[in-house]
Amino acid sequence: MDHQENTAAAPAHLRNQVPGAPVRSGIPEHGRIPKYYAVKARIAELVEELGVGRALPTERDLAERYEVARETVRQALRELLLEGRLRRQGRGTVVAGPKLEQPLSLASYTEGVRRQGRTPGRTLISLDRFPCPDALADAIGAAPGEPAWHMERVLLADDERVGLESTYVSVARVPRLDTDFDPDSSFYAYLRDRLGIAFGDADERIETVLATPREALLIGTPPALPMLLLHRMSRDTEGRPLERVRTLYRGDRFSFTTHLG
Amino acid sequence: MDHQENTAAAPAHLRNQVPGAPVRSGIPEHGRIPKYYAVKARIAELVEELGVGRALPTERDLAERYEVARETVRQALRELLLEGRLRRQGRGTVVAGPKLEQPLSLASYTEGVRRQGRTPGRTLISLDRFPCPDALADAIGAAPGEPAWHMERVLLADDERVGLESTYVSVARVPRLDTDFDPDSSFYAYLRDRLGIAFGDADERIETVLATPREALLIGTPPALPMLLLHRMSRDTEGRPLERVRTLYRGDRFSFTTHLG
Repeated sequence: MDHQENTAAAPAHLRNQVPGAPVRSGIPEHGRIPKYYAVKARIAELVEELGVGRALPTERDLAERYEVARETVRQALRELLLEGRLRRQGRGTVVAGPKLEQPLSLASYTEGVRRQGRTPGRTLISLDRFPCPDALADAIGAAPGEPAWHMERVLLADDERVGLESTYVSVARVPRLDTDFDPDSSFYAYLRDRLGIAFGDADERIETVLATPREALLIGTPPALPMLLLHRMSRDTEGRPLERVRTLYRGDRFSFTTHLG
Repeated sequence: MDHQENTAAAPAHLRNQVPGAPVRSGIPEHGRIPKYYAVKARIAELVEELGVGRALPTERDLAERYEVARETVRQALRELLLEGRLRRQGRGTVVAGPKLEQPLSLASYTEGVRRQGRTPGRTLISLDRFPCPDALADAIGAAPGEPAWHMERVLLADDERVGLESTYVSVARVPRLDTDFDPDSSFYAYLRDRLGIAFGDADERIETVLATPREALLIGTPPALPMLLLHRMSRDTEGRPLERVRTLYRGDRFSFTTHLG
């Protein structure tokens, strides 16, 4: 096998193809390239050159450099921000670090974030006691109408708001959640250490959704930012339903990893 | 425990709270509700009433019904389309079915789609042979410069384009991919049945990204539709690196499920 010959024969777009990146930098072979996208591709190169944490030139400078309208630059920046390649810092825009890689596992948010050398935190938004609706009953092992907790917390990583979590659990199971539990701590550690409840298994579903205005406000993201939404239904080690969790993660900050065996 | 009392005490927004849905329908307690979002919430209710496959009234009718500008309706519909609650059909807009639930497993796309009673299909976009770049070498078990395949296929479900897949594999491992393999069939079945290669394990990473113009064109989606991107690096039963796959799934059509034990 002659590698030289192969090099010569390879289509130009493959020679520098990075696996994981879109093919041909996402530019169609035929048809028009939207002007903003051509600018986005050039800014993306600039982002690579600058490196994490470095400031991007202003919109006006970029518009002059690429000889396009400021609105064109703005659209390109908007997508790079939504994708988490850039982030706002004060009044400027800087190159963002890589997304956090959270393992899909029974481990808690807390453990996942710690494993990446970041400091996890949580801010309580609300803790309500309410009669369990029919749609929730099976998932938390309560009869319809029996009391249930809904705890809503903003998730933090190094003091940055990165997600929003709703936990539903039966009051019979966790009677003193309102008085006994520090909402800025791990709920799983509380279940384990104070109530002797261990997780057995869970079903998870992951999808992408747009942040609602309320969610965007609580997490501090632009509205309609693509988010990753995880639904979890977990059971204890005896197979009894335990909790129903809905966790929204910033799509520009998180990715999820799993090992399939 | 008196359930009646609980019902009376429950905050209004919790009485009809569906777990899995955003809290308070996503409307902030304080601050302004964007007008388009209020319209979106009402159209979402209408979508529930109509049911899957039913046609939505025209933009003009909706604008009249809710007494807002057509542009406001358009923005609401745009988000419902991005989220996969509506879909275009001919010149109209209809209520979409639920997202496909694809298991995160070593099973192929083919098996996952079949399990949901849909017919899988694939359309070959390109098959190229090129010298393996450094960044790909470890992942496919080839030395840099050795020949590698890049196969790109559009994924179909019931003849609808739902994704785009790039497979990278070493030519030494799969020498006759170009002549021996029907690109509209399962690559995993080919490896197993024709080459006796079985999958041992894989690392997967899942994130949300925006479709590039090229991807949007190939999959037939609006540009900047949020997509789910799966990166897979798999090994055979002897632990040897096998393939590097980048699969983009329409975020409005797919969710992924996993069982954690």
